[in-house]
Amino acid sequence: ELTIILQDLHFADIAEIIDELNLEQAVFLVKLLDSEKTSEALMELDEDQRDRVLNALSPKEIAGELGEMDTDDAADILNDLPDDVAQEVINQMEDEQHIEDIVDLLRYDENSAGGLMAKELVKVNENWTVTGCVSEMRAQAENVTRVHSIYVVDNGNKLKGRLSLKDLLTSSESTPIKEVYIPKVDKVNVNTTGEEVARIMRKYDLEAIPVVDELDRLVGRITIDDIVDFITEEAEKDYQLASGISQDVEANDSIWDLTKARLPWLVLGLVGGIGAAAIMGRFEHMIAEHAILFLFTPLIAAMAGNVGVQSSAIIVQGIANDDLKGSIGNRLLKEVLLAMLNGFILAILLFAYTFITEGGILTASAISVSLFAVIIVAGLIGTFVPLFLHKRGIDPALATGPFITTSNDIFGILIYFMIAKTIIGI
Amino acid sequence: ELTIILQDLHFADIAEIIDELNLEQAVFLVKLLDSEKTSEALMELDEDQRDRVLNALSPKEIAGELGEMDTDDAADILNDLPDDVAQEVINQMEDEQHIEDIVDLLRYDENSAGGLMAKELVKVNENWTVTGCVSEMRAQAENVTRVHSIYVVDNGNKLKGRLSLKDLLTSSESTPIKEVYIPKVDKVNVNTTGEEVARIMRKYDLEAIPVVDELDRLVGRITIDDIVDFITEEAEKDYQLASGISQDVEANDSIWDLTKARLPWLVLGLVGGIGAAAIMGRFEHMIAEHAILFLFTPLIAAMAGNVGVQSSAIIVQGIANDDLKGSIGNRLLKEVLLAMLNGFILAILLFAYTFITEGGILTASAISVSLFAVIIVAGLIGTFVPLFLHKRGIDPALATGPFITTSNDIFGILIYFMIAKTIIGI
Ligand SMILES: [Mg+2]
Ligand SMILES: [Mg+2]
Ligand SMILES: [Mg+2]
Ligand SMILES: [Mg+2]
Ligand SMILES: [Mg+2]
Ligand SMILES: [Mg+2]
Ligand SMILES: [Mg+2]
Ligand SMILES: [Mg+2]
Ligand SMILES: [Mg+2]
Ligand SMILES: [Mg+2]
Ligand SMILES: [Mg+2]
Ligand SMILES: [Mg+2]
Ligand SMILES: [Mg+2]
Repeated sequence: ELTIILQDLHFADIAEIIDELNLEQAVFLVKLLDSEKTSEALMELDEDQRDRVLNALSPKEIAGELGEMDTDDAADILNDLPDDVAQEVINQMEDEQHIEDIVDLLRYDENSAGGLMAKELVKVNENWTVTGCVSEMRAQAENVTRVHSIYVVDNGNKLKGRLSLKDLLTSSESTPIKEVYIPKVDKVNVNTTGEEVARIMRKYDLEAIPVVDELDRLVGRITIDDIVDFITEEAEKDYQLASGISQDVEANDSIWDLTKARLPWLVLGLVGGIGAAAIMGRFEHMIAEHAILFLFTPLIAAMAGNVGVQSSAIIVQGIANDDLKGSIGNRLLKEVLLAMLNGFILAILLFAYTFITEGGILTASAISVSLFAVIIVAGLIGTFVPLFLHKRGIDPALATGPFITTSNDIFGILIYFMIAKTIIGI
Repeated sequence: ELTIILQDLHFADIAEIIDELNLEQAVFLVKLLDSEKTSEALMELDEDQRDRVLNALSPKEIAGELGEMDTDDAADILNDLPDDVAQEVINQMEDEQHIEDIVDLLRYDENSAGGLMAKELVKVNENWTVTGCVSEMRAQAENVTRVHSIYVVDNGNKLKGRLSLKDLLTSSESTPIKEVYIPKVDKVNVNTTGEEVARIMRKYDLEAIPVVDELDRLVGRITIDDIVDFITEEAEKDYQLASGISQDVEANDSIWDLTKARLPWLVLGLVGGIGAAAIMGRFEHMIAEHAILFLFTPLIAAMAGNVGVQSSAIIVQGIANDDLKGSIGNRLLKEVLLAMLNGFILAILLFAYTFITEGGILTASAISVSLFAVIIVAGLIGTFVPLFLHKRGIDPALATGPFITTSNDIFGILIYFMIAKTIIGI
């Protein structure tokens, strides 16, 4: 009876239930229910829970689940399994065509169109007639949850265009497909990055996009639901990177997993702080007479960090959206102007405060002029580093958060003391 | 001839071209091309450029563009126009039904299902027969770019279910719709938040979802392309908030716009820094004998900030994904354990460094024990503040970035000096 109730639920709801169960119960449920349902539910599980469940299933049982999955999902699962288990699972699978399709997908990079595409699609040959086409389409559509588009290929499987269902239905039965198809179709190459696929599908409001290989042969199709997941996951990863969390973790992960993701960035911060302390140590002879300079070091570090994070965030987003126009030089110039404007306002405020509370015009000038300089340098570092990484082919998102704040802490404090010392004239 | 080339381009490409033009050229192009094309292109423009272009068009011209837009887009444009211009535009529009639909959409909050939905959809009455249905559908589908789903309503316009195209085509012509429709359909209420709509569509892999009012009457439909835009924009806003940038700005915005978005957070940082300096001032009598304590204040501030940002980021994401299980108490307890583990490792490292380079075991203990305490408090603040804001109905994303780093700077330095003072025993 439980089975009947569960069988009626949407696979995404079943996944939510399985996420709540302990391992034994979860495995029991996966074995109990039809693989048609559980295979899709497996894809929606929390990754850790999925790994545990798969670990508790035999290769034959996994093969049963994969047999019901779309090729893209099956390939993702196989990619995550240890090599020997994956091979064993492949050996246990039955549907030859399905295996071949899945194995074909295994060779693509996870973050490329090839890694995102599925083999399930509906295609017709340009040389067929409408009649031949309709019956062939019916057969193909069996394996495809949603049809979206009918793609037209030539004898060499090269993508020629697409077919509108309406045109197909209103054309006479003996019309060749050649005469009715639409020769314009958005497409991507297997090597196109996931980010670029997402940008294109978002720009043209597409629900599916065909994927071609280097010879323009139709090899797969990417659907918008997978792109929605991709966009969400990328955004979460970038957000975490900017917050000093590497690896993909969640609030419910174990303390150990969370520590592994967080500790490296904290150690970086510790090293930066020790560096800052060492720099300040070089100016320790000033501490007796100019204690006030030392009181403002956290302020300087905080401002350098904030400005750096702001600039780098804007640049990282600009790169991601592909809308940074103009040269690096112009970009840096703009940031200098921006930092000068912000820095000027902030320096005036700080001057007013220190002058009123501490007296000395010289000290007040030293502190506020240094702040002004620090803000400009911090803005430049925040702008330059992500642009530089991007040019080098490194993900600029790495350069946000703790990386920028730590380097800006060090440079900020160094500049601060050098300028302050010059102005005070010691 | 130029017109012909441009007319052939996709509206998203035309939008990219218009984005690059100066105002005069942009307005010229919008007037030159068919509104069928430019209306869609207008929606894809950079917001600032769109405002400028609309500003340069007469109410009658705007009405012409809106006449070609989907109702959701037209409503968004009207919402952004000054009230008197919007009224003038409405007066100039011709299609009565279209105006009525748009005006109906104006009353919903931008961030709700009502604000995201369009009036364009295909629906049939459960009391019709298949024949009546097909002809009615044809008429409705004229105004709907992609059909996605056919919704079934009763005489009172209450949403009853949906119809699969296949069932419709394979049923005999006199069958009542009542007998063939699928009574299960995902739906959202007009007041459902955009985040929740996105979560549901993502979870169930939907390409469209019907929207009902309080009486379960079908009032609109949300399509996945608008949800993709929504998700992307929300992610960008959260990323910017976490980086100390309020308001939605881009790298190409004017220096003035960027300053408005960035300066307030920098002023907050300045105030925090002044607060930290004031706290340190209370311990200034220790500066001669224990200068080293002051050298490590940027380190303490940096670590407090980093830990706080890490914890708050995890919590903010957990809230957004609706997967924070358990009570606030458990959550804080977990963060304490995590901070203790991280803090312990970091404190050992710092102890080793200070002990080796500076000698004194007392000083080294004072600094490292304080760091340990600061990390725990910083983690608690980072966890508690977003949870608290969320309980109060305030967007927890506000509590990330500069907000947390600034408060943690102050608390961190206060705790640091208090504990250090106690240990050293002055
Ligand atoms: Mg099963
Ligand atoms: Mg894949
Ligand atoms: Mg779009
Ligand atoms: Mg759109
Ligand atoms: Mg898929
Ligand atoms: Mg990325
Ligand atoms: Mg026009
Ligand atoms: Mg709207
Ligand atoms: Mg999904
Ligand atoms: Mg899915
Ligand atoms: Mg829309
Ligand atoms: Mg949000
Ligand atoms: Mg800081």
